[in-house]
Amino acid sequence: MGAFRHLLGIEALSVAQIAALLDEADRLANGGAPARPLHGCVQVNAFYENSTRTLLSFELAGKRLGAHVLNMAVAQSSVAKGESLADTARTIEAVGATVIVLRHAHVGAAAAVAAAVGCAVVNAGDGTGEHPTQALVDALTLRRRFGRIEGLVVAIVGDIRHSRVARSNMLLLTRMGATVRFAGPPTLLPDEVPAGTSVAENIDAAIAGADAVMMLRVQHERMVDRLDLSVADYHARYGLTFARLASAARHAVVLHPGPINRGVEIDGALADDPARSMILRQVALGVPVRMACLAAVQADL
Amino acid sequence: MGAFRHLLGIEALSVAQIAALLDEADRLANGGAPARPLHGCVQVNAFYENSTRTLLSFELAGKRLGAHVLNMAVAQSSVAKGESLADTARTIEAVGATVIVLRHAHVGAAAAVAAAVGCAVVNAGDGTGEHPTQALVDALTLRRRFGRIEGLVVAIVGDIRHSRVARSNMLLLTRMGATVRFAGPPTLLPDEVPAGTSVAENIDAAIAGADAVMMLRVQHERMVDRLDLSVADYHARYGLTFARLASAARHAVVLHPGPINRGVEIDGALADDPARSMILRQVALGVPVRMACLAAVQADL
Amino acid sequence: MGAFRHLLGIEALSVAQIAALLDEADRLANGGAPARPLHGCVQVNAFYENSTRTLLSFELAGKRLGAHVLNMAVAQSSVAKGESLADTARTIEAVGATVIVLRHAHVGAAAAVAAAVGCAVVNAGDGTGEHPTQALVDALTLRRRFGRIEGLVVAIVGDIRHSRVARSNMLLLTRMGATVRFAGPPTLLPDEVPAGTSVAENIDAAIAGADAVMMLRVQHERMVDRLDLSVADYHARYGLTFARLASAARHAVVLHPGPINRGVEIDGALADDPARSMILRQVALGVPVRMACLAAVQADL
Repeated sequence: MGAFRHLLGIEALSVAQIAALLDEADRLANGGAPARPLHGCVQVNAFYENSTRTLLSFELAGKRLGAHVLNMAVAQSSVAKGESLADTARTIEAVGATVIVLRHAHVGAAAAVAAAVGCAVVNAGDGTGEHPTQALVDALTLRRRFGRIEGLVVAIVGDIRHSRVARSNMLLLTRMGATVRFAGPPTLLPDEVPAGTSVAENIDAAIAGADAVMMLRVQHERMVDRLDLSVADYHARYGLTFARLASAARHAVVLHPGPINRGVEIDGALADDPARSMILRQVALGVPVRMACLAAVQADL
Repeated sequence: MGAFRHLLGIEALSVAQIAALLDEADRLANGGAPARPLHGCVQVNAFYENSTRTLLSFELAGKRLGAHVLNMAVAQSSVAKGESLADTARTIEAVGATVIVLRHAHVGAAAAVAAAVGCAVVNAGDGTGEHPTQALVDALTLRRRFGRIEGLVVAIVGDIRHSRVARSNMLLLTRMGATVRFAGPPTLLPDEVPAGTSVAENIDAAIAGADAVMMLRVQHERMVDRLDLSVADYHARYGLTFARLASAARHAVVLHPGPINRGVEIDGALADDPARSMILRQVALGVPVRMACLAAVQADL
Repeated sequence: MGAFRHLLGIEALSVAQIAALLDEADRLANGGAPARPLHGCVQVNAFYENSTRTLLSFELAGKRLGAHVLNMAVAQSSVAKGESLADTARTIEAVGATVIVLRHAHVGAAAAVAAAVGCAVVNAGDGTGEHPTQALVDALTLRRRFGRIEGLVVAIVGDIRHSRVARSNMLLLTRMGATVRFAGPPTLLPDEVPAGTSVAENIDAAIAGADAVMMLRVQHERMVDRLDLSVADYHARYGLTFARLASAARHAVVLHPGPINRGVEIDGALADDPARSMILRQVALGVPVRMACLAAVQADL
């Protein structure tokens, strides 16, 4: 695998690098031993935003690789004392971190940290920027299901404009030869879309014939205010149901980065249907994908 | 040891299963190596309620067994995003948990999680339901002191009605052949009591001739409102003192699940008396008991 | 190394003990293996005050020694239930801790815990009392730079009166034969100073000819109220700049316990100058120093 120092976004990855990460994660998911264990390495998870699944899977990934894993309690930290993010990152590195896994509310936070330190940095989500490991998880889920990513048609539905998951997936899927169709409330669609992607008129047009439908999480507490839509209205217009999915390809699957809102962006029974829903498989692939990423960025340490 | 998938409460355990758990914990407390180490297993502690001793002892128990132990920061988690407990549990399992240790404010929470997942679940306290590992700790404390549980008379004093510790102890002690006497403020006594137990007229009647007195923690900040009793009044009527303990058996010991309120439900000097107080021994047995429990539920993984 | 049970402050350490701790930390900083690994030992970090660097470095130090390291979530703990510090400490010990690392807002907290328990206690900061491992870090930083501590002139600038860092450094540096000069706002200077130290008229007098300048963190949010000084005024009167440092010895270095306030007590560019600033080296020495301390207090366990 071509080793690289940081994993800041899909944007900077070549097709070969993406493929190598997916290959290694796939091997690990099949029970393979880590090609490159990280004994003696030190991983600091600096999560400035809430997380269950991402933090747990990064923590377990590091431990399975044999690294020392430290979760920084941000609320209890010097951050409360007004230290800048770059100074905090330099401190974490000086303590001995060989990799910093950062989740932060600001776009570019991981890149800013990477510019400040000499150790590896993995972006675990930066505002509305990127969430590259989630996109790798989703890509591996699709590749294990369909045997390939190239040529797939993937509908992504919801708040596209503010979603780092949508952005990283769009970058990865188009780079690997898939086609992406967006749908969602008009004010939450992107202003322009890159080659290989299109904005559908509505969710049904996006889904028609698609191989996969990726539903994004709705911040439903804010939805009524921003969209002037009730939860029921949202579900009627943009929610995924068995009926709606019927217009997709017969083998179509459903993805969601979680946590799901049952009855809002997705019908609960559909989310639970193991024949259609990949949601728990996505979670399960989180650990091997993050093991591959953590090993890649620390390869030459 | 008869292996079982979950440890949800004493209610579901047979006499043989309880004895086997106590035997294994006793062996570990004497310095024995774990019969069944858990290398590669993944324990997620999901504590939705405050805890020092229980969380620390579950964490150390898992680490001593060689498992990867992850503490889920509930306040920072998707719980804040409205995810259901069952969905959170399924996500934790999908990340790779082989056992979920759950503490939750709602009765039946651990059973609900057990119904939702395929991995093992250990109940570390569910509302006013059960706290089975605490009852096993208390039973082992008594068994190591008296050589047996059968035939012992145990007084349990305090807020019986709302105490999961009282409930799990009552179930275990009666199942193993001990007699239980309850005492406490009238409004905090149970409406009816099962065979092998009785409600005493007052604390002194409960203690008379008893082999052990188990004092429950008083939520003293709420006591004045609920009981219209001052702390001094509570102590006078329901608090355990050397004087009161004099009516128990000469060899009688004192238990308390902690944290204690000195001068409220128990006199501080009595709590500190190593000849009478088992309080720190209970804490010390917490780790071997939880090691035995964690190993038992993951036995066939 | 002369082993001791607790590390409560520099006050109780002999010259030989300080030298032995620095020697072992120096050896570890150079890549040496721990003379005394702590496999099977249990370290509980009980931090009642915010910390990033100190908590991370204690945690990593324990893990590098092979101990089980548990971070007690104080906010989620029985502390919230009104348990006394001594009772909490006895509980932590009973769970199995072989060392308790305590940070607490009250002077003497670590000593109080040490009096309550039989296991080892390390003071990670007690109010305005002591912060011995920080002073050892600073001393090792100086010793590695200058080859010795004896004979050095060290200026310590800022809120001397309330600083546990200043206090522990003063004790250590004078004990090892260095000279200490204090400077800072008049109301924040100590009432009297011990042998080997002096209070300078102003920061420039303190710095003149000094081998090292140690700047203390300013609680700048409180500064305006307490001192009736703006941030700019504070920087002008008490802040360290390249210009000011020019009056120190040509080889003079700058220390700061962090987190720094750029443009308040120290100029940002000076803090970042690797030729002058020891700040990140101090952080980096935090882990080996704490490894040496943790090993020393648990030596005879």
